[in-house]
Amino acid sequence: MTRTPLTDLDEVQLLDTTLRDGEQMPGVSLTPAEKVDVARELDAAGMHLIEAGSACTSEGEREAIRRVAGEGLDAAVTSFARGVKRDVDHALDCGVDGINLVVPASDKHVETKVGSTRDEVVDTTVELVEYATDHGLWVEVLGEDGSRADLDYLDRLLGAGLDAGADRICYCDTVGAADPERTAEVVSRLADLGPTSLHTHDDLGFGVANVHAGLRAGADTVHGTVMGVGERAGNVALEEVAVALARSYDVDTVDLPRLYRLCRTVSEATGVALPPNKAVCGSNAFAHESGIHTDGTLKDGTMYEPYPPETVGRERRLVLGKHAGRAGVKAALAEHDVAVDADELSAVVSRVKELGDRGKRVTDADLLAITEDVQGRERDRRVELVDLSATSGGNLPTASVRLRVADEERVASGTGAGPVDAGLEAVRAALAGDSSGEGVSFDLNSYHVDAITGGTDAVVTVEVDLSRGDRSVSVSSTDADITRASVVAMVDGLDRLLSAAAEDGSVPDAPSLADD
Amino acid sequence: MTRTPLTDLDEVQLLDTTLRDGEQMPGVSLTPAEKVDVARELDAAGMHLIEAGSACTSEGEREAIRRVAGEGLDAAVTSFARGVKRDVDHALDCGVDGINLVVPASDKHVETKVGSTRDEVVDTTVELVEYATDHGLWVEVLGEDGSRADLDYLDRLLGAGLDAGADRICYCDTVGAADPERTAEVVSRLADLGPTSLHTHDDLGFGVANVHAGLRAGADTVHGTVMGVGERAGNVALEEVAVALARSYDVDTVDLPRLYRLCRTVSEATGVALPPNKAVCGSNAFAHESGIHTDGTLKDGTMYEPYPPETVGRERRLVLGKHAGRAGVKAALAEHDVAVDADELSAVVSRVKELGDRGKRVTDADLLAITEDVQGRERDRRVELVDLSATSGGNLPTASVRLRVADEERVASGTGAGPVDAGLEAVRAALAGDSSGEGVSFDLNSYHVDAITGGTDAVVTVEVDLSRGDRSVSVSSTDADITRASVVAMVDGLDRLLSAAAEDGSVPDAPSLADD
Repeated sequence: MTRTPLTDLDEVQLLDTTLRDGEQMPGVSLTPAEKVDVARELDAAGMHLIEAGSACTSEGEREAIRRVAGEGLDAAVTSFARGVKRDVDHALDCGVDGINLVVPASDKHVETKVGSTRDEVVDTTVELVEYATDHGLWVEVLGEDGSRADLDYLDRLLGAGLDAGADRICYCDTVGAADPERTAEVVSRLADLGPTSLHTHDDLGFGVANVHAGLRAGADTVHGTVMGVGERAGNVALEEVAVALARSYDVDTVDLPRLYRLCRTVSEATGVALPPNKAVCGSNAFAHESGIHTDGTLKDGTMYEPYPPETVGRERRLVLGKHAGRAGVKAALAEHDVAVDADELSAVVSRVKELGDRGKRVTDADLLAITEDVQGRERDRRVELVDLSATSGGNLPTASVRLRVADEERVASGTGAGPVDAGLEAVRAALAGDSSGEGVSFDLNSYHVDAITGGTDAVVTVEVDLSRGDRSVSVSSTDADITRASVVAMVDGLDRLLSAAAEDGSVPDAPSLADD
Repeated sequence: MTRTPLTDLDEVQLLDTTLRDGEQMPGVSLTPAEKVDVARELDAAGMHLIEAGSACTSEGEREAIRRVAGEGLDAAVTSFARGVKRDVDHALDCGVDGINLVVPASDKHVETKVGSTRDEVVDTTVELVEYATDHGLWVEVLGEDGSRADLDYLDRLLGAGLDAGADRICYCDTVGAADPERTAEVVSRLADLGPTSLHTHDDLGFGVANVHAGLRAGADTVHGTVMGVGERAGNVALEEVAVALARSYDVDTVDLPRLYRLCRTVSEATGVALPPNKAVCGSNAFAHESGIHTDGTLKDGTMYEPYPPETVGRERRLVLGKHAGRAGVKAALAEHDVAVDADELSAVVSRVKELGDRGKRVTDADLLAITEDVQGRERDRRVELVDLSATSGGNLPTASVRLRVADEERVASGTGAGPVDAGLEAVRAALAGDSSGEGVSFDLNSYHVDAITGGTDAVVTVEVDLSRGDRSVSVSSTDADITRASVVAMVDGLDRLLSAAAEDGSVPDAPSLADD
């Protein structure tokens, strides 16, 4: 593919505003400790500037900004400040390197919101830029709602900021209303005045397109957030901008292999789930299900990927479902050391598709059960759930299970943080020792329940991933009772692991549980 | 803002491939009934073409396509077909209007994946186009991986398809590898040959940018999916394209006010949650939290929105949190008929921010409790949870509660689908009748738990929204025990509703519960 130079500039800088504009996302609120954790990851990834918050917000917010500023990061740390002196003082009080000084630019913001006039806003801006720079701050002047502003006024306002000593100005598409043509028109004017940043939102889906148009028009710095968190539809996602710049234009910004880890950190801190179909960080970003794609990917990893997953610190994943094909099913079975002949493979593929047709995700356990059935193999269960009871709601959630393990019944109980956790402890206790004193341990690698949004009687699907030694298995179970769904999935997974261990003798304690 | 003509064409058509490329998203699988439901919504929204599936996939898939094709929709219904005669026959068998015939275009796909040659692929394409058109099918020829193909070959391949009678050709950025410059380069060549569609993916975040570049270069039809579901990072989101075309370029495609409903239908059918920060359909797309934004929005709805939420069938929402300001808090209190003076308001705002600083979302119940405290109002609880116990895991999840309602203790039990559902029934039973025979009923409008992805001991936050008559209240509760968190939230919400009713006498049965 032809590489087109995107910009005349040697480099593009990224200003990460996850801790400021990102945190303004309704429902998101970070503690100072969480802000510091995120800031460290941002810095480790090589973000050039970190807007740590808005010092005027609250004392807690100032504490957070102070702590981020005191971390000794390589990145420059800034605070958001409105066009009032008090905000600049608050920022100074936090020990930041600079401020993002936001002043109204569109008439709607100048007149209706702030109740001011164009001239007054220019005067205040000049005054505050001089005040801030006099106090040693780096200053970026942002013309709020600039994309909807009168261009001559925006020019005058931001030009006055630069003349007063600001280090740079910023094109703000505050409400995500601009298209790439408008962005190019405005930015080309601003870039003539001095160093220009881009601040874009995704309300029309043009977040990235406007960054592209703005860089072409002469901007050299991009504001954005990790995962695109932010107000309304969010800011442009910086991990996407970084990858696109590197892949398409040979413009290096940050350390790409840190990006996935960074996204997970932000997801955990903000409570915003990684959407499955989000570039770079989505759980499916490097997953392949359909037969055509899986077959092609097994032949050549680049067949259905624009760049290797390792680029951003990830791994490829193949998934089975109704679009499964022979190559993908065969590869999945090989991971479980199961060999099939050509006819068997056809039969298994067709059954996997049937399961998919019924709207079901196909787990390892589903695949193995189908294959056994196709091959006419009888398999005795190693572990079976006979009885389960859990109490919750009170002070000490408790569960008891009766399991059949090989030929023996085992009853055990456990307590936990809730009914599911107690159930897990009861299962562990039941397997901890048999009559001969030998125990079986296992790891619960992941426990996942999709968000519950129906009523209290919604059917939930629990997915668990269990492992013993170097073997792992995924299992799901569906029930309106979350306790039952969870424990059934765990026991089914354990059963699979112990069967596999008994067959290949790979796990020393497995034979004691086998009935053959 | 200046309106720039995007294209010379009178109209842009949308081809929705949610039911084909969207469904190839790992983990997503739709039953025939779900496909029909989604197809009806797509048609009602005015999608021009609906690719209903890939007829070669399975018998279940063919049944689904047959049913969609038999619905008598206004939209043309098509099936995906690989470059093999069997696939075209399968499509014919489903009674579709046309096919999306996909043939390899890049050398990687021609040689490594299919093990063929450029000439062979051209011959097969010509043969199949003739075969399909002879059988009365509308035909679109897609050059798979076209964005990475040799441009002269792509030209020759798709040109041959048109010469053989195909109705249109499609630029496929199959792996989302192209930037807007490459898209413009390729599409401008293809559009010289004949009617050209765009099929873009979002792996580099360029999904929308490439649609923009492609339309500018002469394409007239856009492929995409609702919510951008699809393989890897997904396809371009058609609801974003539709809104952007209408808002920025005055190009009408579909019925915008149906878009939100359409997104919810697809979210429910696929099980893919609506990301909070997604344009058009995200829960936050028209929500405002920060003080500046809320204040501005209360003054003028367009202050922080690029277009009114009603455009896409939605409503605006104001949310409280650490960025809250006076205007937003005052508006929220007014909804609960609570008046505060200026000093009280300052104190409430500061306490709301404190709560936000601790990383907590601020619900109605939180706001009201803070305000009472600030105003020094004593409020006796109307309902209190004294005891709770739930059993689950077995055949009949059961819960019992002891509630203090006014001065009376009430014990009741209930059964349900799981421990939480049983808990809700027990609460309902306890309130169903008091000693004088009067009962209190309420509606649980929503019950929400974020996805659980930690271990089994993860702390979960339950958010409920309850209402009685025209009053509603949101409450959240956090606990590692999901049963306890859920019932506590419900009882706290009820308490709030009954207090409000007792104070204003607005709900007839409330006084019987009051202790004053």
